[in-house]
Amino acid sequence: MRVKLAKNYGFCFGVRRAIKLAESKSNGITLGPLIHNAKEINRLKEDFNVVVNENIEEIPQNAEVIIRTHGIPKQDLQRLKEKTSKITDATCPFVTKPQAICEKMSAQGYQIVIFGDIKHPEVKGVMSYCENNPLVVENLEALKALKLTEKVALISQTTKNIELFLEIANYLIRNCSECRVFNTICNATFDNQDSARNLAKEVDVMVIVGGKNSSNTKQLYNISKEHCQDCYLIEDFSELNAQWFKDKKLCGVSAGASTPNWIIDKVVKTIENY
Amino acid sequence: MRVKLAKNYGFCFGVRRAIKLAESKSNGITLGPLIHNAKEINRLKEDFNVVVNENIEEIPQNAEVIIRTHGIPKQDLQRLKEKTSKITDATCPFVTKPQAICEKMSAQGYQIVIFGDIKHPEVKGVMSYCENNPLVVENLEALKALKLTEKVALISQTTKNIELFLEIANYLIRNCSECRVFNTICNATFDNQDSARNLAKEVDVMVIVGGKNSSNTKQLYNISKEHCQDCYLIEDFSELNAQWFKDKKLCGVSAGASTPNWIIDKVVKTIENY
Repeated sequence: MRVKLAKNYGFCFGVRRAIKLAESKSNGITLGPLIHNAKEINRLKEDFNVVVNENIEEIPQNAEVIIRTHGIPKQDLQRLKEKTSKITDATCPFVTKPQAICEKMSAQGYQIVIFGDIKHPEVKGVMSYCENNPLVVENLEALKALKLTEKVALISQTTKNIELFLEIANYLIRNCSECRVFNTICNATFDNQDSARNLAKEVDVMVIVGGKNSSNTKQLYNISKEHCQDCYLIEDFSELNAQWFKDKKLCGVSAGASTPNWIIDKVVKTIENY
Repeated sequence: MRVKLAKNYGFCFGVRRAIKLAESKSNGITLGPLIHNAKEINRLKEDFNVVVNENIEEIPQNAEVIIRTHGIPKQDLQRLKEKTSKITDATCPFVTKPQAICEKMSAQGYQIVIFGDIKHPEVKGVMSYCENNPLVVENLEALKALKLTEKVALISQTTKNIELFLEIANYLIRNCSECRVFNTICNATFDNQDSARNLAKEVDVMVIVGGKNSSNTKQLYNISKEHCQDCYLIEDFSELNAQWFKDKKLCGVSAGASTPNWIIDKVVKTIENY
Protein backbone atom coordinates (compact mmCIF):
# COMPACT_ATOMS: atom_id res chain seq x y z
CA MET A 1 0.00 0.00 0.00
CA ARG A 2 1.30 3.39 -1.03
CA VAL A 3 1.13 6.08 1.70
CA LYS A 4 1.08 9.85 1.27
CA LEU A 5 1.48 12.17 4.24
CA ALA A 6 -0.41 15.46 4.46
CA LYS A 7 1.68 18.54 3.64
CA ASN A 8 1.22 19.74 7.22
CA TYR A 9 0.45 17.39 10.08
CA GLY A 10 1.31 16.56 13.66
CA PHE A 11 3.08 18.60 16.29
CA CYS A 12 2.30 22.28 16.40
CA PHE A 13 4.48 24.98 17.86
CA GLY A 14 2.68 24.95 21.23
CA VAL A 15 3.00 21.19 21.72
CA ARG A 16 6.64 21.13 20.65
CA ARG A 17 7.36 23.94 23.11
CA ALA A 18 5.45 22.22 25.95
CA ILE A 19 7.29 18.93 25.49
CA LYS A 20 10.65 20.68 25.47
CA LEU A 21 9.71 22.47 28.70
CA ALA A 22 8.53 19.22 30.32
CA GLU A 23 11.68 17.37 29.28
CA SER A 24 13.71 20.06 31.04
CA LYS A 25 11.80 19.50 34.30
CA SER A 26 12.56 15.90 35.26
CA ASN A 27 10.43 14.61 38.13
CA GLY A 28 7.92 17.38 37.49
CA ILE A 29 4.16 17.08 37.85
CA THR A 30 1.69 18.24 35.22
CA LEU A 31 -1.75 19.28 36.42
CA GLY A 32 -3.78 17.13 34.02
CA PRO A 33 -2.17 15.70 30.86
CA LEU A 34 0.37 18.05 29.25
CA ILE A 35 -1.03 17.29 25.78
CA HIS A 36 -3.84 15.08 24.51
CA ASN A 37 -1.73 12.08 23.63
CA ALA A 38 -1.58 9.27 26.16
CA LYS A 39 1.42 7.59 24.55
CA GLU A 40 3.58 10.70 24.54
CA ILE A 41 2.55 11.36 28.16
CA ASN A 42 3.70 7.84 28.94
CA ARG A 43 7.04 8.45 27.21
CA LEU A 44 7.57 11.59 29.32
CA LYS A 45 6.92 9.51 32.42
CA GLU A 46 9.29 6.73 31.41
CA ASP A 47 12.10 8.91 30.09
CA PHE A 48 11.85 11.95 32.42
CA ASN A 49 9.64 10.86 35.32
CA VAL A 50 7.24 13.69 34.48
CA VAL A 51 3.94 12.51 35.94
CA VAL A 52 0.33 13.61 35.66
CA ASN A 53 -1.84 14.57 38.60
CA GLU A 54 -5.45 15.59 37.95
CA ASN A 55 -6.10 16.82 41.49
CA ILE A 56 -4.59 20.10 42.56
CA GLU A 57 -5.03 19.21 46.25
CA GLU A 58 -2.77 16.20 45.87
CA ILE A 59 0.14 18.23 44.56
CA PRO A 60 2.81 18.46 47.30
CA GLN A 61 4.09 21.76 48.66
CA ASN A 62 7.01 23.18 46.64
CA ALA A 63 6.58 20.59 43.92
CA GLU A 64 7.92 21.23 40.41
CA VAL A 65 4.71 21.83 38.45
CA ILE A 66 4.22 22.18 34.70
CA ILE A 67 1.03 23.77 33.35
CA ARG A 68 -0.48 21.87 30.43
CA THR A 69 -0.64 23.29 26.87
CA HIS A 70 -4.39 23.83 27.21
CA GLY A 71 -3.93 26.14 30.18
CA ILE A 72 -5.76 25.87 33.50
CA PRO A 73 -8.49 27.93 35.18
CA LYS A 74 -7.37 31.18 36.80
CA GLN A 75 -8.49 29.95 40.24
CA ASP A 76 -6.39 26.77 39.89
CA LEU A 77 -3.36 28.84 38.98
CA GLN A 78 -3.95 30.94 42.08
CA ARG A 79 -4.24 27.82 44.25
CA LEU A 80 -1.12 26.38 42.68
CA LYS A 81 0.85 29.54 43.42
CA GLU A 82 -0.08 29.18 47.08
CA LYS A 83 1.48 25.70 47.07
CA THR A 84 4.64 26.24 45.08
CA SER A 85 6.74 28.85 43.35
CA LYS A 86 8.25 26.28 41.00
CA ILE A 87 5.73 26.63 38.20
CA THR A 88 6.61 26.21 34.53
CA ASP A 89 3.90 27.58 32.27
CA ALA A 90 3.61 25.42 29.16
CA THR A 91 0.27 26.97 28.20
CA CYS A 92 0.34 27.43 24.44
CA PRO A 93 0.73 31.17 23.70
CA PHE A 94 -2.20 30.83 21.30
CA VAL A 95 -4.30 29.83 24.31
CA THR A 96 -2.96 32.57 26.57
CA LYS A 97 -4.28 35.05 23.98
CA PRO A 98 -8.01 34.15 24.25
CA GLN A 99 -7.62 34.06 28.06
CA ALA A 100 -6.36 37.65 27.98
CA ILE A 101 -9.07 38.71 25.51
CA CYS A 102 -11.80 37.31 27.77
CA GLU A 103 -10.40 39.11 30.77
CA LYS A 104 -10.16 42.44 28.95
CA MET A 105 -13.43 42.28 27.02
CA SER A 106 -15.57 41.16 29.94
CA ALA A 107 -14.05 43.96 32.05
CA GLN A 108 -15.17 46.37 29.31
CA GLY A 109 -18.73 45.09 29.56
CA TYR A 110 -18.84 42.90 26.48
CA GLN A 111 -20.86 39.71 26.60
CA ILE A 112 -18.38 36.94 25.80
CA VAL A 113 -19.30 34.21 23.36
CA ILE A 114 -16.90 31.27 23.17
CA PHE A 115 -17.17 28.86 20.25
CA GLY A 116 -15.93 25.66 21.82
CA ASP A 117 -16.53 22.57 23.89
CA ILE A 118 -17.43 23.50 27.47
CA LYS A 119 -15.91 20.24 28.74
CA HIS A 120 -12.53 20.82 27.06
CA PRO A 121 -9.74 21.95 29.44
CA GLU A 122 -8.71 24.81 27.14
CA VAL A 123 -12.26 26.21 27.22
CA LYS A 124 -12.53 25.74 30.99
CA GLY A 125 -9.34 27.73 31.37
CA VAL A 126 -10.42 30.50 28.99
CA MET A 127 -13.88 30.76 30.61
CA SER A 128 -12.33 31.34 34.02
CA TYR A 129 -10.91 34.66 32.79
CA CYS A 130 -14.37 36.13 32.14
CA GLU A 131 -15.76 38.43 34.81
CA ASN A 132 -19.30 37.36 33.93
CA ASN A 133 -20.61 34.02 32.77
CA PRO A 134 -19.63 33.59 29.14
CA LEU A 135 -21.88 31.89 26.60
CA VAL A 136 -20.15 28.72 25.40
CA VAL A 137 -21.59 27.15 22.27
CA GLU A 138 -20.59 24.27 20.04
CA ASN A 139 -22.75 25.35 17.11
CA LEU A 140 -25.12 28.00 15.81
CA GLU A 141 -28.22 26.14 16.96
CA ALA A 142 -27.08 26.31 20.57
CA LEU A 143 -26.45 30.05 20.23
CA LYS A 144 -29.89 30.75 18.78
CA ALA A 145 -31.50 29.64 22.04
CA LEU A 146 -29.58 32.21 24.09
CA LYS A 147 -30.30 35.81 24.96
CA LEU A 148 -27.75 38.27 23.58
CA THR A 149 -26.80 41.78 24.60
CA GLU A 150 -25.99 44.63 22.20
CA LYS A 151 -22.19 44.40 22.55
CA VAL A 152 -20.67 40.98 22.09
CA ALA A 153 -17.08 39.71 21.84
CA LEU A 154 -16.56 36.38 20.09
CA ILE A 155 -13.56 34.08 20.43
CA SER A 156 -12.94 30.48 19.44
CA GLN A 157 -11.30 27.46 20.99
CA THR A 158 -7.97 27.40 19.11
CA THR A 159 -8.66 24.09 17.38
CA LYS A 160 -12.12 24.72 15.97
CA ASN A 161 -13.36 24.83 12.40
CA ILE A 162 -13.34 28.29 10.79
CA GLU A 163 -16.51 27.74 8.74
CA LEU A 164 -18.59 27.05 11.85
CA PHE A 165 -16.93 29.98 13.61
CA LEU A 166 -18.03 32.27 10.75
CA GLU A 167 -21.61 30.95 10.97
CA ILE A 168 -21.67 32.03 14.59
CA ALA A 169 -20.02 35.37 13.80
CA ASN A 170 -22.59 36.08 11.08
CA TYR A 171 -25.48 35.39 13.40
CA LEU A 172 -24.01 37.75 16.00
CA ILE A 173 -23.34 40.48 13.42
CA ARG A 174 -26.96 40.28 12.28
CA ASN A 175 -28.33 40.42 15.81
CA CYS A 176 -26.01 42.69 17.80
CA SER A 177 -25.01 46.26 17.18
CA GLU A 178 -21.34 45.55 17.85
CA CYS A 179 -19.65 42.22 17.42
CA ARG A 180 -15.97 42.13 18.20
CA VAL A 181 -14.56 39.06 16.54
CA PHE A 182 -11.20 37.68 17.61
CA ASN A 183 -10.05 34.96 15.30
CA THR A 184 -8.26 32.79 17.84
CA ILE A 185 -8.16 29.64 15.74
CA CYS A 186 -4.46 28.85 15.52
CA ASN A 187 -2.54 28.75 12.25
CA ALA A 188 -1.25 25.23 12.83
CA THR A 189 -4.87 24.15 13.08
CA PHE A 190 -5.66 25.93 9.81
CA ASP A 191 -2.65 24.45 8.05
CA ASN A 192 -3.25 20.90 9.27
CA GLN A 193 -6.94 21.15 8.35
CA ASP A 194 -6.23 22.53 4.88
CA SER A 195 -3.63 19.86 4.17
CA ALA A 196 -5.91 17.06 5.41
CA ARG A 197 -8.74 18.37 3.22
CA ASN A 198 -6.54 18.46 0.12
CA LEU A 199 -5.09 15.03 0.77
CA ALA A 200 -8.48 13.43 1.48
CA LYS A 201 -9.64 14.53 -1.98
CA GLU A 202 -6.93 12.51 -3.76
CA VAL A 203 -6.70 9.25 -1.79
CA ASP A 204 -8.84 6.07 -1.52
CA VAL A 205 -8.51 5.71 2.21
CA MET A 206 -7.45 8.10 4.94
CA VAL A 207 -5.99 7.48 8.39
CA ILE A 208 -5.87 10.18 11.07
CA VAL A 209 -3.53 9.54 13.98
CA GLY A 210 -4.15 11.23 17.29
CA GLY A 211 -5.61 11.13 20.76
CA LYS A 212 -9.31 10.39 20.88
CA ASN A 213 -9.75 13.19 23.43
CA SER A 214 -7.94 15.65 21.14
CA SER A 215 -10.19 18.36 19.71
CA ASN A 216 -7.97 19.18 16.73
CA THR A 217 -7.59 15.50 15.85
CA LYS A 218 -11.37 15.11 15.78
CA GLN A 219 -11.60 18.13 13.43
CA LEU A 220 -9.07 16.53 11.07
CA TYR A 221 -11.14 13.37 11.06
CA ASN A 222 -14.42 15.21 10.37
CA ILE A 223 -12.92 17.31 7.58
CA SER A 224 -11.26 14.29 5.93
CA LYS A 225 -14.41 12.22 6.19
CA GLU A 226 -16.26 14.87 4.14
CA HIS A 227 -13.95 14.22 1.20
CA CYS A 228 -12.95 10.57 1.67
CA GLN A 229 -15.58 8.15 2.86
CA ASP A 230 -13.11 5.52 4.08
CA CYS A 231 -11.59 7.49 6.89
CA TYR A 232 -10.31 6.11 10.22
CA LEU A 233 -9.19 7.69 13.47
CA ILE A 234 -6.58 5.71 15.44
CA GLU A 235 -4.30 6.37 18.40
CA ASP A 236 -1.49 4.16 17.12
CA PHE A 237 -0.52 1.37 14.72
CA SER A 238 -2.07 -1.38 16.88
CA GLU A 239 -5.56 -0.20 15.89
CA LEU A 240 -4.91 -0.60 12.15
CA ASN A 241 -6.98 -3.21 10.32
CA ALA A 242 -5.76 -4.79 7.08
CA GLN A 243 -9.35 -4.96 5.77
CA TRP A 244 -9.47 -1.16 5.50
CA PHE A 245 -6.86 -1.20 2.72
CA LYS A 246 -8.28 -4.03 0.60
CA ASP A 247 -8.58 -2.94 -3.05
CA LYS A 248 -7.23 0.51 -2.21
CA LYS A 249 -4.25 2.09 -3.94
CA LEU A 250 -3.31 5.21 -2.04
CA CYS A 251 -3.65 5.87 1.69
CA GLY A 252 -3.47 9.41 3.08
CA VAL A 253 -2.13 9.99 6.58
CA SER A 254 -2.46 13.01 8.80
CA ALA A 255 -2.04 13.48 12.54
CA GLY A 256 -3.27 15.79 15.28
CA ALA A 257 -1.14 18.54 16.76
CA SER A 258 -0.31 16.42 19.81
CA THR A 259 0.78 13.28 17.94
CA PRO A 260 4.54 12.68 18.07
CA ASN A 261 6.45 11.60 14.98
CA TRP A 262 7.48 8.26 16.47
CA ILE A 263 3.83 7.20 16.61
CA ILE A 264 3.12 8.47 13.07
CA ASP A 265 6.22 6.71 11.67
CA LYS A 266 5.09 3.38 13.03
CA VAL A 267 1.62 3.82 11.53
CA VAL A 268 3.05 4.71 8.10
CA LYS A 269 5.44 1.73 8.11
CA THR A 270 2.66 -0.67 9.11
CA ILE A 271 0.35 0.55 6.32
CA GLU A 272 3.17 0.38 3.77
CA ASN A 273 3.68 -3.28 4.62
CA TYR A 274 0.08 -4.26 3.82
CA MET B 1 -54.67 45.59 -12.41
CA ARG B 2 -54.60 44.51 -8.77
CA VAL B 3 -51.91 46.18 -6.64
CA LYS B 4 -50.35 44.93 -3.42
CA LEU B 5 -48.12 47.16 -1.32
CA ALA B 6 -45.11 45.76 0.53
CA LYS B 7 -45.65 45.28 4.27
CA ASN B 8 -42.98 47.92 4.95
CA TYR B 9 -42.08 50.60 2.43
CA GLY B 10 -41.31 54.27 2.01
CA PHE B 11 -40.40 56.88 4.58
CA CYS B 12 -38.08 55.79 7.34
CA PHE B 13 -37.72 57.40 10.73
CA GLY B 14 -34.74 59.54 9.65
CA VAL B 15 -36.44 60.94 6.57
CA ARG B 16 -39.69 61.65 8.41
CA ARG B 17 -37.73 63.48 11.10
CA ALA B 18 -35.69 65.47 8.56
CA ILE B 19 -38.79 66.64 6.68
CA LYS B 20 -40.47 67.71 9.90
CA LEU B 21 -37.35 69.70 10.85
CA ALA B 22 -37.17 71.31 7.39
CA GLU B 23 -40.84 72.22 7.44
CA SER B 24 -40.25 74.03 10.73
CA LYS B 25 -37.47 76.16 9.17
CA SER B 26 -39.22 78.13 6.44
CA ASN B 27 -36.81 79.98 4.15
CA GLY B 28 -34.00 77.67 5.26
CA ILE B 29 -31.19 76.38 3.06
CA THR B 30 -30.14 72.74 2.90
CA LEU B 31 -26.53 72.04 2.00
CA GLY B 32 -27.20 69.56 -0.81
CA PRO B 33 -30.60 67.85 -1.09
CA LEU B 34 -32.21 67.03 2.27
CA ILE B 35 -33.23 63.58 1.03
CA HIS B 36 -32.79 61.74 -2.25
CA ASN B 37 -36.16 62.59 -3.73
CA ALA B 38 -36.31 65.48 -6.16
CA LYS B 39 -40.09 65.79 -6.03
CA GLU B 40 -40.26 66.04 -2.25
CA ILE B 41 -37.41 68.57 -2.32
CA ASN B 42 -39.47 70.55 -4.79
CA ARG B 43 -42.52 70.41 -2.52
CA LEU B 44 -40.43 71.73 0.40
CA LYS B 45 -39.35 74.61 -1.83
CA GLU B 46 -42.88 75.43 -2.99
CA ASP B 47 -44.60 75.03 0.38
CA PHE B 48 -41.89 76.24 2.79
CA ASN B 49 -39.33 78.04 0.62
CA VAL B 50 -36.67 75.60 1.85
CA VAL B 51 -34.06 75.67 -0.92
CA VAL B 52 -31.03 73.58 -1.78
CA ASN B 53 -27.53 74.96 -2.18
CA GLU B 54 -24.73 72.58 -3.11
CA ASN B 55 -21.94 75.06 -2.51
CA ILE B 56 -21.00 75.93 1.05
CA GLU B 57 -19.26 79.13 -0.07
CA GLU B 58 -22.51 80.49 -1.51
CA ILE B 59 -24.37 80.19 1.77
CA PRO B 60 -24.90 83.69 3.23
CA GLN B 61 -23.65 84.69 6.68
CA ASN B 62 -26.15 83.90 9.45
CA ALA B 63 -28.37 81.93 7.11
CA GLU B 64 -30.81 79.35 8.46
CA VAL B 65 -29.14 76.08 7.40
CA ILE B 66 -30.46 72.53 7.58
CA ILE B 67 -28.05 69.58 7.38
CA ARG B 68 -29.24 66.81 5.06
CA THR B 69 -30.24 63.34 6.34
CA HIS B 70 -27.04 61.86 4.88
CA GLY B 71 -24.87 64.12 7.01
CA ILE B 72 -22.00 66.25 5.72
CA PRO B 73 -18.21 66.03 6.05
CA LYS B 74 -16.75 67.18 9.35
CA GLN B 75 -14.79 69.96 7.61
CA ASP B 76 -17.95 71.29 5.95
CA LEU B 77 -19.70 71.38 9.32
CA GLN B 78 -16.77 73.35 10.71
CA ARG B 79 -16.88 75.81 7.80
CA LEU B 80 -20.65 76.13 8.22
CA LYS B 81 -20.30 76.94 11.90
CA GLU B 82 -17.96 79.80 11.01
CA LYS B 83 -20.71 81.26 8.81
CA THR B 84 -23.78 80.80 10.95
CA SER B 85 -24.99 79.63 14.31
CA LYS B 86 -28.45 78.85 12.95
CA ILE B 87 -27.82 75.22 12.06
CA THR B 88 -30.47 72.51 12.27
CA ASP B 89 -28.96 69.05 12.15
CA ALA B 90 -31.28 66.72 10.24
CA THR B 91 -28.60 64.07 9.92
CA CYS B 92 -30.29 60.73 10.49
CA PRO B 93 -29.24 59.42 13.94
CA PHE B 94 -28.42 56.12 12.24
CA VAL B 95 -25.82 58.03 10.20
CA THR B 96 -24.45 59.98 13.16
CA LYS B 97 -23.64 56.58 14.71
CA PRO B 98 -21.16 55.36 12.05
CA GLN B 99 -19.60 58.85 12.04
CA ALA B 100 -18.95 58.56 15.78
CA ILE B 101 -17.69 54.96 15.41
CA CYS B 102 -15.18 56.02 12.74
CA GLU B 103 -13.91 58.85 14.89
CA LYS B 104 -13.47 56.64 17.95
CA MET B 105 -12.08 53.54 16.23
CA SER B 106 -9.57 55.37 14.08
CA ALA B 107 -8.37 57.25 17.18
CA GLN B 108 -7.81 53.84 18.81
CA GLY B 109 -5.65 52.73 15.89
CA TYR B 110 -8.09 50.50 14.06
CA GLN B 111 -7.97 50.41 10.31
CA ILE B 112 -11.47 51.45 9.18
CA VAL B 113 -13.23 49.53 6.44
CA ILE B 114 -16.44 51.08 5.13
CA PHE B 115 -18.78 49.00 3.02
CA GLY B 116 -20.36 51.64 0.83
CA ASP B 117 -20.29 53.86 -2.22
CA ILE B 118 -17.43 56.34 -2.01
CA LYS B 119 -19.40 58.85 -4.10
CA HIS B 120 -22.47 58.78 -1.83
CA PRO B 121 -22.84 61.83 0.47
CA GLU B 122 -23.44 59.65 3.54
CA VAL B 123 -20.14 57.84 2.95
CA LYS B 124 -18.28 61.07 2.26
CA GLY B 125 -19.56 62.38 5.59
CA VAL B 126 -18.68 59.21 7.52
CA MET B 127 -15.20 59.02 5.94
CA SER B 128 -14.38 62.53 7.09
CA TYR B 129 -14.54 61.36 10.70
CA CYS B 130 -11.64 58.91 10.26
CA GLU B 131 -8.24 60.10 11.45
CA ASN B 132 -6.55 57.99 8.78
CA ASN B 133 -7.67 57.15 5.28
CA PRO B 134 -10.39 54.52 5.54
CA LEU B 135 -10.76 51.70 3.04
CA VAL B 136 -14.07 52.15 1.22
CA VAL B 137 -15.26 49.15 -0.76
CA GLU B 138 -18.42 48.30 -2.66
CA ASN B 139 -17.80 44.55 -2.70
CA LEU B 140 -15.49 41.77 -1.55
CA GLU B 141 -13.47 41.79 -4.77
CA ALA B 142 -12.43 45.39 -4.18
CA LEU B 143 -11.38 44.55 -0.63
CA LYS B 144 -9.24 41.60 -1.69
CA ALA B 145 -6.94 43.95 -3.58
CA LEU B 146 -6.17 46.00 -0.47
CA LYS B 147 -3.58 45.63 2.25
CA LEU B 148 -5.02 45.02 5.72
CA THR B 149 -3.64 45.55 9.19
CA GLU B 150 -4.18 43.20 12.15
CA LYS B 151 -6.91 45.26 13.83
CA VAL B 152 -9.79 46.30 11.65
CA ALA B 153 -13.14 47.98 12.36
CA LEU B 154 -15.90 47.44 9.82
CA ILE B 155 -18.99 49.59 9.32
CA SER B 156 -21.56 49.81 6.58
CA GLN B 157 -23.37 52.56 4.73
CA THR B 158 -26.80 52.43 6.43
CA THR B 159 -28.67 51.37 3.29
CA LYS B 160 -26.51 48.46 2.13
CA ASN B 161 -27.31 44.80 1.73
CA ILE B 162 -26.58 42.63 4.79
CA GLU B 163 -25.50 39.58 2.78
CA LEU B 164 -22.71 41.48 1.03
CA PHE B 165 -21.75 43.08 4.35
CA LEU B 166 -21.32 39.61 5.87
CA GLU B 167 -19.16 38.48 2.92
CA ILE B 168 -16.82 41.35 3.71
CA ALA B 169 -16.93 40.66 7.45
CA ASN B 170 -16.08 37.00 6.87
CA TYR B 171 -13.08 37.86 4.74
CA LEU B 172 -11.81 40.24 7.43
CA ILE B 173 -12.36 37.69 10.22
CA ARG B 174 -10.35 35.13 8.27
CA ASN B 175 -7.52 37.53 7.57
CA CYS B 176 -7.21 39.79 10.62
CA SER B 177 -6.64 38.90 14.24
CA GLU B 178 -9.35 41.29 15.44
CA CYS B 179 -12.32 42.43 13.41
CA ARG B 180 -14.69 44.77 15.16
CA VAL B 181 -17.94 44.65 13.26
CA PHE B 182 -20.51 47.40 13.72
CA ASN B 183 -23.74 46.51 12.04
CA THR B 184 -24.78 50.00 10.98
CA ILE B 185 -27.32 48.92 8.38
CA CYS B 186 -30.52 50.55 9.59
CA ASN B 187 -33.61 48.60 10.59
CA ALA B 188 -35.86 50.48 8.19
CA THR B 189 -33.56 49.31 5.41
CA PHE B 190 -33.79 45.72 6.68
CA ASP B 191 -37.57 45.86 6.99
CA ASN B 192 -38.15 47.46 3.59
CA GLN B 193 -35.75 44.96 1.96
CA ASP B 194 -37.36 41.95 3.64
CA SER B 195 -40.84 43.09 2.69
CA ALA B 196 -39.85 43.80 -0.92
CA ARG B 197 -38.23 40.34 -1.16
CA ASN B 198 -41.34 38.60 0.15
CA LEU B 199 -43.68 40.59 -2.08
CA ALA B 200 -41.54 40.08 -5.21
CA LYS B 201 -41.91 36.30 -4.75
CA GLU B 202 -45.70 36.41 -5.04
CA VAL B 203 -46.39 38.96 -7.80
CA ASP B 204 -46.13 38.97 -11.64
CA VAL B 205 -44.69 42.44 -11.89
CA MET B 206 -43.05 44.74 -9.39
CA VAL B 207 -42.69 48.52 -9.31
CA ILE B 208 -40.22 50.30 -7.03
CA VAL B 209 -40.80 54.01 -6.48
CA GLY B 210 -37.92 56.23 -5.48
CA GLY B 211 -35.16 58.63 -6.43
CA LYS B 212 -32.71 57.24 -8.96
CA ASN B 213 -29.84 58.63 -6.86
CA SER B 214 -31.20 56.88 -3.76
CA SER B 215 -29.00 54.02 -2.50
CA ASN B 216 -31.74 52.22 -0.56
CA THR B 217 -34.16 52.47 -3.51
CA LYS B 218 -31.58 50.83 -5.77
CA GLN B 219 -31.18 48.00 -3.19
CA LEU B 220 -34.95 47.44 -3.20
CA TYR B 221 -34.87 47.24 -6.97
CA ASN B 222 -31.95 44.77 -7.03
CA ILE B 223 -33.48 42.52 -4.36
CA SER B 224 -36.90 42.50 -6.05
CA LYS B 225 -35.39 41.83 -9.46
CA GLU B 226 -33.82 38.62 -8.05
CA HIS B 227 -37.28 37.23 -7.32
CA CYS B 228 -39.46 38.90 -9.95
CA GLN B 229 -38.03 39.35 -13.44
CA ASP B 230 -40.45 42.09 -14.48
CA CYS B 231 -39.30 44.75 -12.10
CA TYR B 232 -39.22 48.50 -12.76
CA LEU B 233 -37.72 51.49 -10.95
CA ILE B 234 -39.57 54.79 -11.38
CA GLU B 235 -39.48 58.20 -9.77
CA ASP B 236 -43.20 58.85 -10.18
CA PHE B 237 -46.39 57.81 -12.01
CA SER B 238 -45.45 59.63 -15.24
CA GLU B 239 -42.81 56.97 -15.97
CA LEU B 240 -45.31 54.09 -15.84
CA ASN B 241 -45.89 52.18 -19.08
CA ALA B 242 -49.12 50.25 -19.70
CA GLN B 243 -47.19 47.58 -21.61
CA TRP B 244 -45.50 46.42 -18.38
CA PHE B 245 -48.82 45.16 -17.03
CA LYS B 246 -50.11 43.34 -20.11
CA ASP B 247 -51.21 39.79 -19.21
CA LYS B 248 -50.21 40.35 -15.56
CA LYS B 249 -52.54 39.79 -12.64
CA LEU B 250 -50.88 41.17 -9.53
CA CYS B 251 -48.47 44.09 -9.27
CA GLY B 252 -46.28 44.58 -6.18
CA VAL B 253 -45.29 48.08 -5.14
CA SER B 254 -42.55 49.19 -2.77
CA ALA B 255 -40.81 52.51 -2.29
CA GLY B 256 -37.49 53.83 -1.04
CA ALA B 257 -37.06 55.43 2.36
CA SER B 258 -37.13 58.92 0.85
CA THR B 259 -40.30 58.48 -1.22
CA PRO B 260 -43.28 60.39 0.19
CA ASN B 261 -46.72 58.82 0.33
CA TRP B 262 -48.28 61.32 -2.07
CA ILE B 263 -46.00 60.05 -4.84
CA ILE B 264 -46.64 56.39 -3.98
CA ASP B 265 -50.42 56.93 -3.85
CA LYS B 266 -50.45 58.37 -7.36
CA VAL B 267 -48.42 55.44 -8.69
CA VAL B 268 -50.77 52.91 -7.07
CA LYS B 269 -53.89 54.64 -8.44
CA THR B 270 -52.46 54.82 -11.96
CA ILE B 271 -51.57 51.10 -11.98
CA GLU B 272 -54.99 50.16 -10.58
CA ASN B 273 -56.61 51.95 -13.51
CA TYR B 274 -54.82 49.89 -16.14
